[in-house]
Formats: sequence, C-alpha cells, structure tokens
Amino acid sequence: MELTSALYLIPVNISNAPLRDTLPDGNLDILRQLRHLIVENIRTARRFLKKCDPSFDIGAVTFYELNRHTDLSEVSSYLEPLRRGEAVGVMSEAGCPAVADPGALPVSIAQREGLKVVPLVGPSSILMALMASGFNGQGFSFNGYLPIEAKEREKKLRDLEALSRRCDMTQIFIETPYRNNKMVECLARTLKGDTLLCVACDITDPEHETIVTQPASRWKNTRYNFDKRPAIFLIYASK
Amino acid sequence: MELTSALYLIPVNISNAPLRDTLPDGNLDILRQLRHLIVENIRTARRFLKKCDPSFDIGAVTFYELNRHTDLSEVSSYLEPLRRGEAVGVMSEAGCPAVADPGALPVSIAQREGLKVVPLVGPSSILMALMASGFNGQGFSFNGYLPIEAKEREKKLRDLEALSRRCDMTQIFIETPYRNNKMVECLARTLKGDTLLCVACDITDPEHETIVTQPASRWKNTRYNFDKRPAIFLIYASK
Repeated sequence: MELTSALYLIPVNISNAPLRDTLPDGNLDILRQLRHLIVENIRTARRFLKKCDPSFDIGAVTFYELNRHTDLSEVSSYLEPLRRGEAVGVMSEAGCPAVADPGALPVSIAQREGLKVVPLVGPSSILMALMASGFNGQGFSFNGYLPIEAKEREKKLRDLEALSRRCDMTQIFIETPYRNNKMVECLARTLKGDTLLCVACDITDPEHETIVTQPASRWKNTRYNFDKRPAIFLIYASK
Repeated sequence: MELTSALYLIPVNISNAPLRDTLPDGNLDILRQLRHLIVENIRTARRFLKKCDPSFDIGAVTFYELNRHTDLSEVSSYLEPLRRGEAVGVMSEAGCPAVADPGALPVSIAQREGLKVVPLVGPSSILMALMASGFNGQGFSFNGYLPIEAKEREKKLRDLEALSRRCDMTQIFIETPYRNNKMVECLARTLKGDTLLCVACDITDPEHETIVTQPASRWKNTRYNFDKRPAIFLIYASK
C-alpha cells in the first residue's frame, strides 16, 4: 500500500495470535513508512512495532501520546505533520482505533479540517462477537459500559432486552474484565429465560477463544469462568 | 492458522484493493484447508477463491448456496460435515459474513447445537466508516435500511437524530446505491444544520475511497456524486 498524506487508523492485535492471522500485510507497508504516530501508550506501541517487524526503525518515529492524562487542547497540534502534507498514524492499545477509545478525537479534528482519513482493516472484538453470536446483524447497538449500581444495571438490562425485542436489534455491551462473572450472573438472573445471551471472550486467541450463545435460563446452570478475560456481551430477544 | 472442527466466518474483500491490504494471510491458510463452503453465490465465491490463490483446488470444495432463493429448512443440513467433526466455512458476497447478510442463520444453528464458531478478521464497511467518521465509537447503532416512503423516511431520520443527541450515540444506516445522492439530499434538507453527517463511500478502494464528515448545513452546498457506489451513512448530533 502506498502512503499518501492522510490520518491512518491502524488496528492492533487483540490476542497473542500470530499477527499474520489477524492483520493484513498491507498495514505493515503503511506502518514502515509512517514517521508520526499518535498512540495511547508509547511503551506498548514500541513493543507492537517491534513485534510487527524486529528491524523496525523506531528511532525514526515521533510518538504523540493520547490517553486520559493528555491535555486535550494539545491534540490538534499532533496533526501538524498532516497539515503540511505528511502522513500520521493513530493506534490504540488493542483493536480498531477510534471505536471505544480516545482515538476518535484526532479523527474528528482531521474531518473538521477536511484532511483525509484512511481506516485500515484489523480485529474488532465488537464486530467479530456480533458475527459469531448468530444474532441479527441487520440491526444492532453497541452501548459501552452499563451502570455499576445493581438496581440501575438491572433496569438498563431490562430496557435493552425490551428494545431488542421491539426493534429486532442485537444489544452489545462490555464490562470491566474482573467483573465479567458477576455480569453473567446478573444477566442470567435478570433476563427472561428465553432471551439469548452470547458471551464472546478472548476473541482471536487460538487457545482460549470462547464464543457461546445460550438462552438466559441455560446460563444459570452453566459453569463458566470469564474472570479477567476480555469479553463482549450480546443479548437478543426475538419477537 | 490450524484448522479445527468449527464454522469459520470468512470475510471477503469489499473493493478492488489488493487482497494483502485487506485480508490477513491466516485467512488463506484456513480457506485452503476447507472442503465445505456456505456461500451466497457459487460463481462469485469461486472467483474470490481463485483471486486468493490461482492454484486453489476448487474441485475439492463442496459449495452450499445460501441466499433469498434458498429453502431455509435446508440450511441445517449444510452443517452436517461440522456435526461429524469437519470444518465448514461461511462467506458472503462482500465484507464480514453474518453482519447484514443471510450468513447469520447457519451461525445461529451452530450456536444452538453447541458447535464451535470462529470469526476471522476482514473488512467491515460499517466499522471502518465508524472509525473514520470521527464520531462517538463508545455508543453506536446500525439501523440497516431506512423506510423508502418520503414522509416515513424523514420521520425516521428525525427520530435517529434525536436519539443520537439524547443518548450520545452515532446512528448508522445504508441505502440502495443508486439512491445514494437522493439520500444525501434528503439528509441535508431534513437534519438540523449543525448535525454532523458522514458519508463513507468505496471503503478500502485505493483510488475512490471517500469518507467525509460535515455539518448537514454544509452538505447542502457541497458537490458530490455517490451514485451506484457502496456507501455507509452516519449521523451524530452532540448535546
């Protein structure tokens, strides 16, 4: 792939799978040519680049850190190379940048200024979970995190279940990994027995990937352990 | 990637980009070993396989057609090889199978029977459009096609706009490609002036990819031609 003056959105692996299994070769062509990279964490970004290609000339790359400690008024300046006709990359810690991570901010600035934005292909746990759930992919919502407080959470779950049934839409959400098991318990207890729940865990991991769809009633009697594993939750209540 | 007994969900290119730019090499390892493929159209599936690898032994593959002419009661029988411990693949015409295409049916049957489902990485125009829009990726909905009738369509658009503002969610939808220009006109006329509209067209196409975000008011005075080009529409109304 040939580099042009654009903001490249560069996906990162989400498991220990060999990179050739989850990232197109073309992404590496782009990475090798980039001299400016917006990343969430410089140390892990360097590690990823070295994993992509041990001979990678990391010294030639300028890194710009974008995470919750970043002064957001600085982010616009990260795009200076782009304004003068160079290319800039955006990477997140895992998966596709600008979906559920801070990378959306430089993208929105680039769009506002009419600068070119080029998304590259890579693993998205949300999308891959949806594919493998067997649920409706013609209509779906990603809702991020649910409320933590028990009553509010149960109400939100019932709302999502009703919405799924009324609008025929798959409802997707995530949880902090150390609370995954509690989430499944709560779902099994709160949802109607015939509402389908899919838990998609360790997506793309060749050894540990688990993507299981069952009615809520069956989850009650299923043994599972999703503790501290990256997971996506999907519910689907058909009419 | 080593083949196991599973239903593999195999993405297909969505543009004329070289395959190495949009599909991981590992997908080809799987494709080469599969002897059973569920596809939307056998002719285009063969063409894709030949493009992946001109030496592909297509004669060794049994194809099962799944499209709107298929008797859906037959689909379960497509999974027979899987039930006896072999692997089966699902491919759609373009993009990721089981998202907005008939592939979801064999996946839901496999899940119901506790058969393993493995999604592979590939281009998804919905997700790539979302990445490049600069819109909120922490909350978003894909709504498929909107109503065709003018009044109903305008009402639906206003509903989605209000929902985007109230719930801080990006609203995504598609249109039959020959009606794309009419859709942009309708959006520019119907949405509030400061609501953002992103049109993402010919995603991954190295020559024609166009992903542009502008306020609805500016789209009114913009020249564009999205006629007969595959496109994704996204709207975002911030509070």
